[in-house]
Amino acid sequence: MKKCSTFTKMTKIRYGMVGGGLDSFIGGVHRAALSLDVRTALTCGCFSRDEVKNNECGEALGISEDNLYSDWREMARAEGAKGVDGIDFVCICTPNHIHYDVCKEFLLNGINVVCEKPLCFEIEQAKELCAIAKEKNLLFGVTYTYSGYNMVKVMKQMIQRGDIGRIISVNVEYPQDWLINELQRDDTVNPSVWRTNPKYTGIGNAVGDIGTHIENLVHYVTGLEINRLCATVDRYGKQLDYNDNILVEYTNGVHGNYWCSQVAAGRMNGLKIRIYGENGSLEWEQHFPDYVKFTRRGEAPQTLSRGCAYLDVEAAGGSRIPAGHPEGFYCAFANIYRNVVNALVEKKETGKADFDKYDFPKAEDGLGGVRFVHAVIYSGDHDSCWVKMSDFE
Amino acid sequence: MKKCSTFTKMTKIRYGMVGGGLDSFIGGVHRAALSLDVRTALTCGCFSRDEVKNNECGEALGISEDNLYSDWREMARAEGAKGVDGIDFVCICTPNHIHYDVCKEFLLNGINVVCEKPLCFEIEQAKELCAIAKEKNLLFGVTYTYSGYNMVKVMKQMIQRGDIGRIISVNVEYPQDWLINELQRDDTVNPSVWRTNPKYTGIGNAVGDIGTHIENLVHYVTGLEINRLCATVDRYGKQLDYNDNILVEYTNGVHGNYWCSQVAAGRMNGLKIRIYGENGSLEWEQHFPDYVKFTRRGEAPQTLSRGCAYLDVEAAGGSRIPAGHPEGFYCAFANIYRNVVNALVEKKETGKADFDKYDFPKAEDGLGGVRFVHAVIYSGDHDSCWVKMSDFE
Amino acid sequence: MKKCSTFTKMTKIRYGMVGGGLDSFIGGVHRAALSLDVRTALTCGCFSRDEVKNNECGEALGISEDNLYSDWREMARAEGAKGVDGIDFVCICTPNHIHYDVCKEFLLNGINVVCEKPLCFEIEQAKELCAIAKEKNLLFGVTYTYSGYNMVKVMKQMIQRGDIGRIISVNVEYPQDWLINELQRDDTVNPSVWRTNPKYTGIGNAVGDIGTHIENLVHYVTGLEINRLCATVDRYGKQLDYNDNILVEYTNGVHGNYWCSQVAAGRMNGLKIRIYGENGSLEWEQHFPDYVKFTRRGEAPQTLSRGCAYLDVEAAGGSRIPAGHPEGFYCAFANIYRNVVNALVEKKETGKADFDKYDFPKAEDGLGGVRFVHAVIYSGDHDSCWVKMSDFE
Amino acid sequence: MKKCSTFTKMTKIRYGMVGGGLDSFIGGVHRAALSLDVRTALTCGCFSRDEVKNNECGEALGISEDNLYSDWREMARAEGAKGVDGIDFVCICTPNHIHYDVCKEFLLNGINVVCEKPLCFEIEQAKELCAIAKEKNLLFGVTYTYSGYNMVKVMKQMIQRGDIGRIISVNVEYPQDWLINELQRDDTVNPSVWRTNPKYTGIGNAVGDIGTHIENLVHYVTGLEINRLCATVDRYGKQLDYNDNILVEYTNGVHGNYWCSQVAAGRMNGLKIRIYGENGSLEWEQHFPDYVKFTRRGEAPQTLSRGCAYLDVEAAGGSRIPAGHPEGFYCAFANIYRNVVNALVEKKETGKADFDKYDFPKAEDGLGGVRFVHAVIYSGDHDSCWVKMSDFE
Repeated sequence: MKKCSTFTKMTKIRYGMVGGGLDSFIGGVHRAALSLDVRTALTCGCFSRDEVKNNECGEALGISEDNLYSDWREMARAEGAKGVDGIDFVCICTPNHIHYDVCKEFLLNGINVVCEKPLCFEIEQAKELCAIAKEKNLLFGVTYTYSGYNMVKVMKQMIQRGDIGRIISVNVEYPQDWLINELQRDDTVNPSVWRTNPKYTGIGNAVGDIGTHIENLVHYVTGLEINRLCATVDRYGKQLDYNDNILVEYTNGVHGNYWCSQVAAGRMNGLKIRIYGENGSLEWEQHFPDYVKFTRRGEAPQTLSRGCAYLDVEAAGGSRIPAGHPEGFYCAFANIYRNVVNALVEKKETGKADFDKYDFPKAEDGLGGVRFVHAVIYSGDHDSCWVKMSDFE
Repeated sequence: MKKCSTFTKMTKIRYGMVGGGLDSFIGGVHRAALSLDVRTALTCGCFSRDEVKNNECGEALGISEDNLYSDWREMARAEGAKGVDGIDFVCICTPNHIHYDVCKEFLLNGINVVCEKPLCFEIEQAKELCAIAKEKNLLFGVTYTYSGYNMVKVMKQMIQRGDIGRIISVNVEYPQDWLINELQRDDTVNPSVWRTNPKYTGIGNAVGDIGTHIENLVHYVTGLEINRLCATVDRYGKQLDYNDNILVEYTNGVHGNYWCSQVAAGRMNGLKIRIYGENGSLEWEQHFPDYVKFTRRGEAPQTLSRGCAYLDVEAAGGSRIPAGHPEGFYCAFANIYRNVVNALVEKKETGKADFDKYDFPKAEDGLGGVRFVHAVIYSGDHDSCWVKMSDFE
Repeated sequence: MKKCSTFTKMTKIRYGMVGGGLDSFIGGVHRAALSLDVRTALTCGCFSRDEVKNNECGEALGISEDNLYSDWREMARAEGAKGVDGIDFVCICTPNHIHYDVCKEFLLNGINVVCEKPLCFEIEQAKELCAIAKEKNLLFGVTYTYSGYNMVKVMKQMIQRGDIGRIISVNVEYPQDWLINELQRDDTVNPSVWRTNPKYTGIGNAVGDIGTHIENLVHYVTGLEINRLCATVDRYGKQLDYNDNILVEYTNGVHGNYWCSQVAAGRMNGLKIRIYGENGSLEWEQHFPDYVKFTRRGEAPQTLSRGCAYLDVEAAGGSRIPAGHPEGFYCAFANIYRNVVNALVEKKETGKADFDKYDFPKAEDGLGGVRFVHAVIYSGDHDSCWVKMSDFE
Repeated sequence: MKKCSTFTKMTKIRYGMVGGGLDSFIGGVHRAALSLDVRTALTCGCFSRDEVKNNECGEALGISEDNLYSDWREMARAEGAKGVDGIDFVCICTPNHIHYDVCKEFLLNGINVVCEKPLCFEIEQAKELCAIAKEKNLLFGVTYTYSGYNMVKVMKQMIQRGDIGRIISVNVEYPQDWLINELQRDDTVNPSVWRTNPKYTGIGNAVGDIGTHIENLVHYVTGLEINRLCATVDRYGKQLDYNDNILVEYTNGVHGNYWCSQVAAGRMNGLKIRIYGENGSLEWEQHFPDYVKFTRRGEAPQTLSRGCAYLDVEAAGGSRIPAGHPEGFYCAFANIYRNVVNALVEKKETGKADFDKYDFPKAEDGLGGVRFVHAVIYSGDHDSCWVKMSDFE
């Protein structure tokens, strides 16, 4: 295992948070992940619209009264006005349906952004956010978790190096089962399950929540671009999709098979990616993220383990815990943030940075997710016809 | 575990074999499977077109010279002419492309047939064979292996009893990797790989060889009927398909996702079926056929084992070996034959039998496989369009 | 995979059976295993002391009245008297407590023997049987099943070739759970569970039934000889042992750790052997017998599969079914018998045979098992002291 | 899943650290674990004897110059002298051989202690530390990691509730392989591998490093106390043990079987505990810590998952991440610290606390580990004789 450089210098990065109060699971994940490396400090926040909750959270996190905002617009303007004394980036953990507004406001105030996925609901919105960030040379990260796992990065580099040869088949699934008790088989939307309600999730539910993880993961690991796709989208009445099968054709003519479901009894977060090439294959499961099944053509399958010396790609050096101990979910987030912070440090120290050379999911990946959701839902709504991605730009 | 009746009486069943000489793997499997239960005797055969090989095989198997035929047509006529003194059924293990001719000849001579899959290449041929068998009230079995595994039968009965509720999603894969070294990326057919040559396999290769096992297994276990399907069919030039993804819509609107491949490095016979219902799920893998993963909605997944007393469906009684010892491939064949033989015994003893009440794959299942292959290949050849099964009747 | 020679010629071998009637599981296994290769014919038998059952079994198996014996002593004498026209070997599937008597009678009548394990109860008996067989140059096989599995043979040859280097640690377990409901916690012997009754099992229960499989398997695979051992032997009152832990020290000073149990809830036949050497390790589980986990020092673990071309030891050629399809229990028995039959064919054709060059478990292995049981029980009865195997000769 | 209370109030806990500089793996783990819950602040430290390293670490962690100590004795006295304004506890991550001295110093200065395992080398030392802590009513935690995993706590409570009935057999292993390349087969100690050098590890290597984890985990989960044990201890010459098998007899007469190794090729941190009771069994592997295999007698094995609603013991509420996402190593540490901090908060707020009611490993557990090491090594040095734990008090 090569040692990867972690942080070049000890410049501290200040961040603020919108959403992510004490009762938000994902907010705590972002903070915990950022704390694993000693590079950042949370200096301000607007954690909840509820004033009491906002205050409680600020106090718990040691945010001084001055730095606790009741309005995220105010926070964006105030921190932006501080210039180099303001936050270096904002972490956005609000409900999905206001991602777009919050992101835009911070970008317009010149503040780098890291936003939870999905980036937003509409393609036009996503394109606009990408454009603003680019124009202002701002960093814009979108936290697609799974690209952060160390062994996912190892797979990506093995494929780049040619370890499995030309890819000839892709198979990915992401089954969950939590929605199975919530489905209403009549024509109505279950008001207590916000994820099946278009108001809060946009046009797609399962495809938006977990299908986009498949799309992003395949693109990250293989570099393949989807040319067209065809989808069966299962839903009850006006409720959103709960079980989707998606055939994809990449621009090079190779095919992929995606399945996502939230009604698969006994499967919890069963994300599994399998990539078959002319010279070998790679398989990875999110349940057991420290291991990759690797088979060279004609040889016996091997179980590669994170942290082992026989892994000879650079990414292997990013392992945090000795082989055989499980790293887990927080480390995946922390790995994304490690690269975000490295990029921000370069920018802070040099005044500029080429964000593209840093390995973290960006606004363009968020845009890719939004386009994917629209294409899948369109296909499902039109008799599962094949649709070209170029019609969703 | 309830004890299932095995054989009602000890009437012996005589059979002959066409093909299946000493260098045929599958011929040996049929004979071994039949020998596991003490009900049958091999009394005649036409094992090879090569006279030397035919003689060697006959001698090894203890077939007297009188009962060793050099021509299967002659065998069909001679055994048919013997009436009740002739064979009770013929087992056909020839190359696929003559299945139709051999089956037809034996049926026309009034002899019950068990034929390897695929039954034949053309839908019309399959329908004709079904019709002849029905008209003459002859038993016609087609050895789709996987429905013979004891735990597959247990799953079928659990679903029938309602253990997983209404089915809402089906996911089945059958990856292999043996073809990966044989593919010719130019436009030609590899002459040494007969399975990619239409002359010997009909129009489909992977779909015919293993895709039909998926189709049959789902139908057997769930009873679902395909309404329409859409397929990506990967091939090189004039060679036959090596990797297929198939979305299916059953007649009740539920969707299934099938993947078969012969170029998936590291997968050998990775048949895996997963059936999700509103109240639970069932998963089975051919590699480890004695186990089923069963999850009731909201409960922890269970690993059911063949042969255990907690299995309370009738099929569980068909277990042959104590729980924890592996039964394997021969037992699956033997389980199919157990029911074939029971049906033939009833027919022999009573002069008639309702074959439908016996659990073994029949000519109609073979017909279903031929229709499936044609539909998949048609879709693949027509830009992966959706095709209705009713257009392939 | 090298092709192994199967049978050199087609000489038929005739065998008789003692015990193993229609309601005996193991009798059916022996017959099925013998039928998988087309080399043997069952020509006579004494299947049950119960005349009705004996007759039924004889009829079912096609044994003519002349060849159905009501007394195994008579069978031994009659078949022995026939000389070359009698049976070539007898298969003994009686209850354990008469193994010794039956084996001895057939040996004394000049008939080769294959006997189920345990060979007998007392060390002196076992030595006597070995001596008679040797003196009369008779084949004497004892069916320790697990050495028959193809991948066990592959492991043995890999170790012989040095693939894992010098062995430094051995860990083997064989947990079952069937006895857990039968234990009587008072001081009495449960009369309905013959396996806990010394009359029928000798002095050891779990150690005799499954512990001896561990002892035999380690010896077969590694060649290691036990110098001394120390055991905790759990029992209730006068009943026999149900859970045993055994530390062993081999003659070269290396240590092994054995555990066998019949009260381990959820474990059915969990035989698992793990052998660690200075250059690598091998692990095998009986549940999934077609696979071996192989790790070279410093490399990723590999999952070797039976039947694959990358297995380059001679034993790999003995695979019967294509890789990825499960062979199972019958094949393990058939593999033992394949070598027994090869040895008998050589003897029949040449008038003599060096049985030692054939790979099947022999009377000496049976003796090793009896010694092991006595040593373990002695240790358990003497405060788990260390005992030397040389005191059990 | 019941919701567990996490923190009752938001009292902040201040801690200092001895050892655990930037190049110490375990120091970073302690800090990361403490940061996952927002209850503590690192306020001072003495991270390295090397002044440059100590300064670098202090700067990186935001420790002001005043609070960065070059001498841990000075730190103990200074912080002790501050009384309620000093640190609430010290976290000791130094090399093992100075644990005793550092612990004692902080205790004597009235400071609560959390120390890495092993607590110290000698039984007398461990007893002394226990006595001082008790006399001064100081909290004394020892970070045996594995008792922190959520599903380990679930198992413990299931056993307490009687889910598997009376325990009848225990089987635990902890194989690693990192030492396999370092062994020197001559008579010398490898100077580059400090873990085999008695100066740095005390008398035991494998048994001290990982064997004690087995001992602690069994005691934690089952409550069983060892009465006597017998061990094979493999070593080369003057080097320390690398592979140990240990039979234990608990005070209730039940037996356990422990195996720890650092030369088991292909095993990285393969800690696996299996507990068999009269009514069921529980199995857990450290590689996949979110899952427990649970079998009720006579039922199919279940795979319990952390975070699922069907887990109805209180401990289940301590889950941090949704079911199906992996928690990992940091969470195990954080779970230990959660209870340490709860205890310290109670003490800080009320002036006293009954530490025994809080679930974290304590100095007495550290003492238990030291006694276990001495007993195992004694047995190994005395022909693997049985030794009574009462002789190691």
